[in-house]
Amino acid sequence: MTALDIAEYTHTLGSQAKTASALMARAPAAIKNKALRALAQLLRDNVQPLQHDNARDLERAVAAGLDAPMVDRLKLTPKVIETCAQGCEQLAAMPDIIGEILGMKQQPSGIRVGQMRVPIGVFGMIYESRPNVTIEAASLSIKSGNACILRGGSEAIESNKALARLVVQALAQAGLPAHGVQLVETTDRAAVGQLIAMPQFVDVIIPRGGKGLIERISAEAKVPVIKHLDGNCHTYVDDPCDIAMAVTVADNAKTQKYSPCNASEGLLVARGVAADFLPRIGAVYAAKGVEMRCDAEALALLAAVPGAKLVPATEQDWGEEYLAPIISVKVVAGVDEAIAHINRYGSHHTDAILTTNHQHAQQFLRDVDSASVMVNASTRFADGFEYGLGAEIGISTDKFHARGPVGIEGLTSLKYVVLGEGEIRT
Amino acid sequence: MTALDIAEYTHTLGSQAKTASALMARAPAAIKNKALRALAQLLRDNVQPLQHDNARDLERAVAAGLDAPMVDRLKLTPKVIETCAQGCEQLAAMPDIIGEILGMKQQPSGIRVGQMRVPIGVFGMIYESRPNVTIEAASLSIKSGNACILRGGSEAIESNKALARLVVQALAQAGLPAHGVQLVETTDRAAVGQLIAMPQFVDVIIPRGGKGLIERISAEAKVPVIKHLDGNCHTYVDDPCDIAMAVTVADNAKTQKYSPCNASEGLLVARGVAADFLPRIGAVYAAKGVEMRCDAEALALLAAVPGAKLVPATEQDWGEEYLAPIISVKVVAGVDEAIAHINRYGSHHTDAILTTNHQHAQQFLRDVDSASVMVNASTRFADGFEYGLGAEIGISTDKFHARGPVGIEGLTSLKYVVLGEGEIRT
Repeated sequence: MTALDIAEYTHTLGSQAKTASALMARAPAAIKNKALRALAQLLRDNVQPLQHDNARDLERAVAAGLDAPMVDRLKLTPKVIETCAQGCEQLAAMPDIIGEILGMKQQPSGIRVGQMRVPIGVFGMIYESRPNVTIEAASLSIKSGNACILRGGSEAIESNKALARLVVQALAQAGLPAHGVQLVETTDRAAVGQLIAMPQFVDVIIPRGGKGLIERISAEAKVPVIKHLDGNCHTYVDDPCDIAMAVTVADNAKTQKYSPCNASEGLLVARGVAADFLPRIGAVYAAKGVEMRCDAEALALLAAVPGAKLVPATEQDWGEEYLAPIISVKVVAGVDEAIAHINRYGSHHTDAILTTNHQHAQQFLRDVDSASVMVNASTRFADGFEYGLGAEIGISTDKFHARGPVGIEGLTSLKYVVLGEGEIRT
Repeated sequence: MTALDIAEYTHTLGSQAKTASALMARAPAAIKNKALRALAQLLRDNVQPLQHDNARDLERAVAAGLDAPMVDRLKLTPKVIETCAQGCEQLAAMPDIIGEILGMKQQPSGIRVGQMRVPIGVFGMIYESRPNVTIEAASLSIKSGNACILRGGSEAIESNKALARLVVQALAQAGLPAHGVQLVETTDRAAVGQLIAMPQFVDVIIPRGGKGLIERISAEAKVPVIKHLDGNCHTYVDDPCDIAMAVTVADNAKTQKYSPCNASEGLLVARGVAADFLPRIGAVYAAKGVEMRCDAEALALLAAVPGAKLVPATEQDWGEEYLAPIISVKVVAGVDEAIAHINRYGSHHTDAILTTNHQHAQQFLRDVDSASVMVNASTRFADGFEYGLGAEIGISTDKFHARGPVGIEGLTSLKYVVLGEGEIRT
């Protein structure tokens, strides 16, 4: 396609989405849930055809020399498909929040004023690799009464097309508009540039993927963007704390999985407990092959740990998101220095204090300027499902609109509803 | 100042605001309320000095040939100053919402998850003429625990400087940072360009003023903007309705004041009541000199009204914000056509239905895509004070973050708070 063709194509998608969004917004809960259940059934009924289309993506990926983890993320296994189907059913079972009216109160003039939750309208989603995101985004769009335009990675185009066809069938079965969920079927990158610059059609863009992608989209988008750039999360081990618990949690926060954005990349330890705590966590990390990038004080306390991979930390390490078996380690005077360090070097994503001191916990919760702040829990919990949102469309580290894991509520807005009996302003 | 000087100056203001914002955010309610009460007292104690500085602005305005309404808006009368003082006291008396924790619930993993309300950080406010906005913005900033940078109009610079000096005194008396509220003291327009492009220091920009100013700021800002561009509000008179009430409300919505953004600019009338309703409201508008820009059907029904100023409407009239004694008038088939017209031509600000039919009311509330939707009330009620927000920093017609009148809540965000007892993710 030429640049002009692509502009026309995305413009058509946008215009169709806008029209569909009005119908999606007023769809009754029962209809939306019917579509979600139909989608679950269609996924289960089409495991083989889906795998057939997925195989074409996988062949191309292998031929293109993508590494094994990348190829793995592309795979639509029966298990991945079943998880998608269950996700749709879980959403269908959740209460519908569209149309709820909050805080209706009578004012001195006699009018009653409240706020009604309504869909945002149209969201655009830009993502990479995993084709199951197509189903996650489509199902959240249906449940929240929004229309959406989905732009998956070129490496997953055949899988995404096959999944999108099932979504369109499910919409039709429930009597919802076919353009409620649309997939961008061209892999031309110019389509992304168009999609993020149509404020007349698209209300918000949600990018998921590498930092480069998200930075580019944020810089160029003409509409609001729900995003997080970095997950430089911290676990701070306070004085006083339950050392055994701190070892367990600091271990989990770093090593349960290395790639998620909510894994801890920095470990801060209060001086008063460092001599006791550091050798113990150091032994755990050493056993798991986690490299420790340490300040001088931590280095000295860890020097005797057998097999520990110790590297002196540079200034750059404090701001790094490793997404790997590496953690930065620093000894601090106490909670004040820990908070200052996190607010300076962190990415405002998720940070935890492990403490038995009430005031330290309160201070940390109040003063750490992050989307999620935790006391005595693993940063790995920062997740829509773990927070009870039912689903997650993304995580926001901005303060505007949604902050932290974004579920259905983040895809809605509140409009004021005023009920009167003929009141006038005097 | 040179462009470089201005860049350095606004950069300094931004950096100081950012530093102050951390202190403002953790200030106890009692301290913030002390500052607000001190400000009220300082305003009352300084009526004469304020009027003295205000006189310098007024002299310049008259010399520059500003029209009488503009000069009027500049005036700091004892009454205006007293209203500002009372506004501060009202804010001081309101409950503090900073630090409140919402919806704390235990999750299956054992962690408890809720959301804590925290200040946004730093907001920038850009406004014209009325110097009392300086006090409104400063007091909302103090109450909401934000820092702010205020850029008033050059025509009010002496008045704004005098008011800002009192704000700084009030902050000092309460022990709050002097840079919690800062006024841009240069009238150079380049400062606005700088202020809206410092995402490292400023979290949100709130422009108040003419459409041109707001459009320019929205296009160029590098941070989110809370704004409304137009107030093309509608009153729709349904079939069936209480005709006498409809006449009273449609009169008030247009004529109580012509300049506010929530005055109705369009009157839609259901065909079934048009012959009864239109001559009655036409007589009221005729008596008040309100010009009616009518479609053919309305024109025919209004032709016999003595003294009515009737003009055939053009397509352009449906989208117009007159802010004047002019209203567009159109006869529609019923609620469906009314909703379609409003969503097509309106500005998503405030629209009202006057009806006795329950379903029509529900449909209008659900389907009209505006920040405020009303049943049987004057659109003039769309206002932070009338909605019980205690104060209003602006009105948003965007769907993202705050929508409709924006009070203290719109200047806050919710961060997730997780409380555990050593839980780990498995």
